[in-house]
Amino acid sequence: MTKARTSKLTIGELAAGQVLDIPLFTFKGRDSSAPSVYVQANVHGAEVQGNAVIFQLMTLLEEHDILGDIVFAPLANPLGINQKSGEFTLGRFDPITGVNWNREYLDHKLDIATWFREHQHLPDAELFTAFQLTLVESCHQKLQQPWGITTGHRLAVNLQTLAHQADIVLDLHTGPKSCKHLYCPEYDMASAKYFSIPYSLIIPNSFGGAMDEAAFCPWWQLVEYATSQGRELTNPVAAFTLELASQERIDMQDALKDAQGILAYLSHRGVIKEQVLPAVMPRYACYLKDYKKFHAPQSGMVEYCASVGEQLPRGETLVNILRVDLYGTEKALMPISLEQDCVPILHFASASVHQGTELYKVMTNVFELT
Amino acid sequence: MTKARTSKLTIGELAAGQVLDIPLFTFKGRDSSAPSVYVQANVHGAEVQGNAVIFQLMTLLEEHDILGDIVFAPLANPLGINQKSGEFTLGRFDPITGVNWNREYLDHKLDIATWFREHQHLPDAELFTAFQLTLVESCHQKLQQPWGITTGHRLAVNLQTLAHQADIVLDLHTGPKSCKHLYCPEYDMASAKYFSIPYSLIIPNSFGGAMDEAAFCPWWQLVEYATSQGRELTNPVAAFTLELASQERIDMQDALKDAQGILAYLSHRGVIKEQVLPAVMPRYACYLKDYKKFHAPQSGMVEYCASVGEQLPRGETLVNILRVDLYGTEKALMPISLEQDCVPILHFASASVHQGTELYKVMTNVFELT
Amino acid sequence: MTKARTSKLTIGELAAGQVLDIPLFTFKGRDSSAPSVYVQANVHGAEVQGNAVIFQLMTLLEEHDILGDIVFAPLANPLGINQKSGEFTLGRFDPITGVNWNREYLDHKLDIATWFREHQHLPDAELFTAFQLTLVESCHQKLQQPWGITTGHRLAVNLQTLAHQADIVLDLHTGPKSCKHLYCPEYDMASAKYFSIPYSLIIPNSFGGAMDEAAFCPWWQLVEYATSQGRELTNPVAAFTLELASQERIDMQDALKDAQGILAYLSHRGVIKEQVLPAVMPRYACYLKDYKKFHAPQSGMVEYCASVGEQLPRGETLVNILRVDLYGTEKALMPISLEQDCVPILHFASASVHQGTELYKVMTNVFELT
Amino acid sequence: MTKARTSKLTIGELAAGQVLDIPLFTFKGRDSSAPSVYVQANVHGAEVQGNAVIFQLMTLLEEHDILGDIVFAPLANPLGINQKSGEFTLGRFDPITGVNWNREYLDHKLDIATWFREHQHLPDAELFTAFQLTLVESCHQKLQQPWGITTGHRLAVNLQTLAHQADIVLDLHTGPKSCKHLYCPEYDMASAKYFSIPYSLIIPNSFGGAMDEAAFCPWWQLVEYATSQGRELTNPVAAFTLELASQERIDMQDALKDAQGILAYLSHRGVIKEQVLPAVMPRYACYLKDYKKFHAPQSGMVEYCASVGEQLPRGETLVNILRVDLYGTEKALMPISLEQDCVPILHFASASVHQGTELYKVMTNVFELT
Repeated sequence: MTKARTSKLTIGELAAGQVLDIPLFTFKGRDSSAPSVYVQANVHGAEVQGNAVIFQLMTLLEEHDILGDIVFAPLANPLGINQKSGEFTLGRFDPITGVNWNREYLDHKLDIATWFREHQHLPDAELFTAFQLTLVESCHQKLQQPWGITTGHRLAVNLQTLAHQADIVLDLHTGPKSCKHLYCPEYDMASAKYFSIPYSLIIPNSFGGAMDEAAFCPWWQLVEYATSQGRELTNPVAAFTLELASQERIDMQDALKDAQGILAYLSHRGVIKEQVLPAVMPRYACYLKDYKKFHAPQSGMVEYCASVGEQLPRGETLVNILRVDLYGTEKALMPISLEQDCVPILHFASASVHQGTELYKVMTNVFELT
Repeated sequence: MTKARTSKLTIGELAAGQVLDIPLFTFKGRDSSAPSVYVQANVHGAEVQGNAVIFQLMTLLEEHDILGDIVFAPLANPLGINQKSGEFTLGRFDPITGVNWNREYLDHKLDIATWFREHQHLPDAELFTAFQLTLVESCHQKLQQPWGITTGHRLAVNLQTLAHQADIVLDLHTGPKSCKHLYCPEYDMASAKYFSIPYSLIIPNSFGGAMDEAAFCPWWQLVEYATSQGRELTNPVAAFTLELASQERIDMQDALKDAQGILAYLSHRGVIKEQVLPAVMPRYACYLKDYKKFHAPQSGMVEYCASVGEQLPRGETLVNILRVDLYGTEKALMPISLEQDCVPILHFASASVHQGTELYKVMTNVFELT
Repeated sequence: MTKARTSKLTIGELAAGQVLDIPLFTFKGRDSSAPSVYVQANVHGAEVQGNAVIFQLMTLLEEHDILGDIVFAPLANPLGINQKSGEFTLGRFDPITGVNWNREYLDHKLDIATWFREHQHLPDAELFTAFQLTLVESCHQKLQQPWGITTGHRLAVNLQTLAHQADIVLDLHTGPKSCKHLYCPEYDMASAKYFSIPYSLIIPNSFGGAMDEAAFCPWWQLVEYATSQGRELTNPVAAFTLELASQERIDMQDALKDAQGILAYLSHRGVIKEQVLPAVMPRYACYLKDYKKFHAPQSGMVEYCASVGEQLPRGETLVNILRVDLYGTEKALMPISLEQDCVPILHFASASVHQGTELYKVMTNVFELT
Repeated sequence: MTKARTSKLTIGELAAGQVLDIPLFTFKGRDSSAPSVYVQANVHGAEVQGNAVIFQLMTLLEEHDILGDIVFAPLANPLGINQKSGEFTLGRFDPITGVNWNREYLDHKLDIATWFREHQHLPDAELFTAFQLTLVESCHQKLQQPWGITTGHRLAVNLQTLAHQADIVLDLHTGPKSCKHLYCPEYDMASAKYFSIPYSLIIPNSFGGAMDEAAFCPWWQLVEYATSQGRELTNPVAAFTLELASQERIDMQDALKDAQGILAYLSHRGVIKEQVLPAVMPRYACYLKDYKKFHAPQSGMVEYCASVGEQLPRGETLVNILRVDLYGTEKALMPISLEQDCVPILHFASASVHQGTELYKVMTNVFELT
C-alpha cells in the first residue's frame, strides 16, 4: 500500500493576511512512459462531491500498481468554497467581480504557425515536450505580469500550470440539481464509455474558457496545423469535465462508484497496471448545439416536475409555475412543457425564479454511445 | 363555489421606486360568532411551500360552507423572496441589517395591570374586543413613529396588524432540509393532533419574537393576570407556526395533504361547517428545552447521514466530516455521533461548513402525543 | 415651458410577482430632421449620479427650444438598484449568474456583406433607415426566442431597442471612487470637447459588449464595408459612456454641471435650437491600450494615496499597504509606486483587498485634446 | 526601543480547511500594579481604521516606558474582513446567520448575590481577582459546550476571554459615513476628555451585547450589589468603544492622532510612565436616550446634505430624496429636515435606499463635556 505524497500550492492571500493553499497529493508512477494525470475538484465552491471522489480514488489507488504520475488537487478554490451567503455557498463566481471562477483560464493565443516552423524538425516526442514547455512558460509569464493579475487569474493559471504538465486532465464539477454527465471533446468520444456516467455532452474542439478546453485546445490547434502542413500527429492530451450529480451534496458511496469509473478509464489508458473494466450501463450523448437552456417565460414559484436523467416526451409537464398572487385567474398555476422530446440534465436550484432564470438544461436529439 | 376576494397590502417601497404589495385573499364567513383566521406564508424568502398550501387550501375552501372569516397572506415578504444570491434565495434576514425577518414583530410591552384595572368592568366578550383594539392600535402607533421605522418593522407590524384581528393565526414556514414540524404553545398542546404534522415542538407561552408568539403572548399575559386577580378567562387566540418540510421546494401534492390537515383543524374549531377528520398518523413531541442544536466541532465537507424525521439511536452516525486535505491522517474522514437518542428534525442546507455551523437540530426526550 | 411626457418600459417580473418597469421621459422635437437622442442611467445599480444629471437636464430642457426627439431612461436597471448587500448596492452583476449587467447587449453579428448587397441601391437616408430597422428587428427576434432569454438579456435588449432608434446615445455611469471620464470612440474624438469631462478614454470602433459599442459598432461596420465597396458613408450614430465621478453618490449641484455639458453637446449637434457653449477647461485623453489596471501584488489594508484626476509622477506613492499582522517586519507598511508617469482615474471602493484585487486604473501616455 | 511580542489566537476553521488566526501583540509592563490593557480592532469587517491606529500606537509605545501589560488584537474578525460582496466588505454580520458579529459576546448571567456571599470575606484586591477568574472561567465553559458553539460565539468569546484579563478595554470601530465618537458608560464620563474624539455617547451601565458592555457590566453589577450590601467598591474595569470616523478607509496620519489620544488616556491611567497630555479641543456629549435614528420615510436616491459632526439647526435640510421616476410631480425632489436641533453623527453608506433604511443617527440635547 502506497499513500500519496502531500504538498501545497499557494494561490492567494486574503485581506486579513491568511495565505490560501490548495492541498496537492501525488502518486509517483514507476513507468515514465505511462501517461501522467491531473485531477482537480471544487473549482466552483458549492460543487463538493469531487472531493469525495478524489478521496475514494486515492484510497483505491493505494492498492494498485501505479505506472503514470497522478496529481490530485481537491478543494481547488478555497475562495469559492469559503464564500457563504445564507445557508448556501456562493462559489460560482468571484464575489467582487462576478467573473465565473471556471472562465479564468488562460487562452494562450499562440502563434502556432511560427511555433511549428521553429520546432518541426523535432521528432514527435520532443516536439510534444517542447510544446508542453511553451504552454507552461506562457502560464508563468501571465503570473509575472508587471501590472499584476486578478485574483481569479492567479488561481486559474496556477491550476492550469499543473494541468499542462499532465497527459490526462479531469476536472470534477457538479450541476445545480443534476444527473451525472460528461463534457467530452468530439475528437475523444470513444473515451466516454469508460466513466460511470450515463450522459455525455459532445463539445467542439475549440476554446470556451473552461479547464478541459484550456488543456486540450492548444494541442488540438497544434495537431490541426501540423496536418495542414502534411505531418500527422496524434493529440497526446485528453481532458474531460465530469459533472457528478448535484451541488451541496457529499455521498461517499456514490463517490466510490465514480472513483471506480475513473479508475476504469485510467486502466484503459495504462496509468495503472491492473485491468479495471468499466461499469456495464447504457450511455447516451448529444452534441452541444442540441443542448438547450430553457428560461422562465414568467416569474413565480416553481415545481420541477421533470426528473433529471429521464426521457421527457414532448408535451409532458416540465414545470408548474405557481403564481398564487394570481389566484382566481387561469395564470395561478401554469404547467409548462416543451415542443420536442428531451432528456432534462439539470435544473435550477431554487424554487422561486425571476422571469428569465434558466430553469432547465435539456439534451435533445440524444443518441446512444456504442 | 365561492372564490376568495382579492386585495392588497402595501408594505414598502424599493430604492428604484417600485411599491411592494402583498396579495391578500379573504373568504367572508357567514357566522360572525365563528372564529376568524389569518394565515400567512413565505416570511422567510426561501420557504415557499406555504404558498402552495395556501393555494390548495383556498381551492378546497371554495367547496366548503365557511362560517368564520379567513384571510390569507401568501408571498408575505417580497423583499425576502426577491433577494437572490447565486442560485438560492437569501431570504432569512434583511440583507442590509442582518435582522431575521421573523424577529421584527412588535413586543407591545403593555402595562397589563393598568389596562386590566381600566377594563375589568367589561364582560368577557367586550373585554376581548377592547384588548384586541388595544393591540391593533399599538401596531398603528408603531407604524406612525415620528423618527420612522425600519423596513423590517414596517413589514412585520403590518402583518401583525392583520394577525391581531384574527382568533386563529397560522404562520407557514419550512426548515432548511427538514421534516414537517409544528411550533405549538404549551397551553394549546391538544390542537397538535389535527394538523398532518408528525412532530411538535412545545414552546413556552412567552415572547420570543416570532409571529405565533406575537399573536398569542399578549393574550396569555392578559389571561394570567386576570387569573391572579381572581377572574377566569379562556385565551381566545390560538397561534401556530407550521414548518412544512424543506425550503426551496414546491410540491403541489404534498401541499394538498397539509391543506387538508389545516382544514381538519379549522373544522374542529368551527370555522367551516363540514366535519373534516384529521389524518390518522402517529404524532410526537418534545419540549423546547429538549430541542438541541448541534454545531460543527470542526470544519469540512459534510455527509448528512441521519434522515430527518427518523429515530437515531445514540452512537449511530449523524454526519461524516470529510477533510480530504487531511488525507493520510485519521482526521480525513470523521464519523460523528451523539451520546443520546434523538430524532433529527432538520439539518443545514449546505454540504460544506465552517467550524461552528449549526449542523442539525434534534429532538430529545421525545414523547407521543395522544 | 414643456415637460417631458411620461411612459413606462416593462423589463421583467420578480419571483414574488412584481412587474419591473423603467420610467421613460420623452421630449418631442419639432424638427424631424434634427438628430434624436437616447440617454440612460443607472444600468449598474450603485452608479446613481446619472439619475440626478437626467433630472437636471430635463429641468434645463423645459426652457429650451427642442428640435430632435429626446428619450430619457433613468433608473434603467431596477434589479441592480434594488439589490442591497449590507450597506451598499450589489448592482454591478446579476446576483444569480454573475454576469455584468453592462455586458448583456446583443452583438447582432449581421452578415453585412449580404445586407449591403441587398440594400445598396437605396440612397443614404433610406439606407440608414433600413439598417436601423434591421437592428431593431434583430432585437425583437432576440426577445422572442422560443427557449426564452435570460433576465439580463431581457433588460439589456429592451434598452438597446430604444438606443437603436436614436442618432445619439449617452450611457451615464460612474466609477467606484473615480474622477469624471468619457469613453469616446476613436472615430468621434472631436466630440469629447463638448462635455464637462476632463479625461477621455479613446476606444477602438469594435464591439466589447457595452451599450455605447452596441449602439455604434454595427454602424461602423456598415460604413467600413461600404467604403470597401467604393461608397462613402458618414456614420450617422454617435454613442458615448460618461463616467460621472464616484458611485453611491448623489450631488445635485455637480449634476447640474454635467447636465450643462451634455446640453452643450446637444446644442452642437443641433438637437436644441439655442447655442450652448461648452465649459472652458483643459481636456486630456489616452488610448485604451495605455489605460492600465494595477492589481494588488499582496493583500492587506489599503491607504489610497494618489488622488484621482491628478498627475502622479513615477516613483510617487500610489498606495500604502498595511499588514499590521506583519508588525515588526519591513512588510508591515509597504508603499507602492509605479514605474511610469500616470493619471489615476479610479480606485477600488474598499480599503481592504485580497491579493489580485484591481486597485487603480490609470491613464498613461496622456495627451491634451485640442 | 522595545517591540511588542507576537503570538496568535486561533478562532476558527474555514470550510476548505484553513485555520483562522488573529495576530496578538503584547507589550509586557514592568510594574505589575499598573493597569493592564486590551485593545482590539476590526470586529466589523469594513471598519479597518482601528488597525492603523493600533499600528501607530504600537510604534509610539516602542519609545515609551511601559508599566502595565498591553495586548493588541488587530484584524480581530478575519471572517468578517475577508467576506467581500461586490466592491465592499460584508463584515457587519455573519453571512450565514445574519447575527451581528458585535452582538455575540457572552452575557454571563451570574448569580451575583450567591457569588458575593461566597466571596465577601476577601479583601478588595483578592475579591477582584476571584471575580475576574469567574468571568474567564465562564468564557471557557461556553467554549467547551458539549453541543458545540456557533462560529460567532467562538470568535467573540475568545476575544472576551482576553478582555476579561485586562483592566482597560478599548474596542476600535468606525461608523458607516461618520464623525469620530465615543461610547462611554455613564459611570466613567470623566474619561471622555482624554481621547481625541469630539463626541461622546453616554450609555447606561447595562448589558446591550457589545464588547465594552461585556467587559464592564459584570463589574458594575458586582459593585452595585456590594453597595446594596453595605460594602463600597470602586469598579476596577474601564471599557470604551471608539468610533474612528468612516468604514472602508485607512488614513495613517489620522490614525496617528487617535493613537496619541489613546496614549493620553493610558498616560492618565498610569499605564505608561511618561505624561502625555490630551489634545485641546471642544468635546460634546449626549445621552443614549437622545441619540436618534432617522429612517427613510420613502425610498429613492439620497443626497446627504448635513455634514457629520456639525450642528444642524431644526428645519435645515438633512437629505434630499430624488425620485426621478416622479419627475413632473412635487415629489420628484423632496428636501427633508428635522423638527429639532441636532448634530448628525453618521449616515448610511449608500446613496439609494428602500423605505425604512436608517438614514442618519443624530445627537439631540447635546451638552459640552468640561
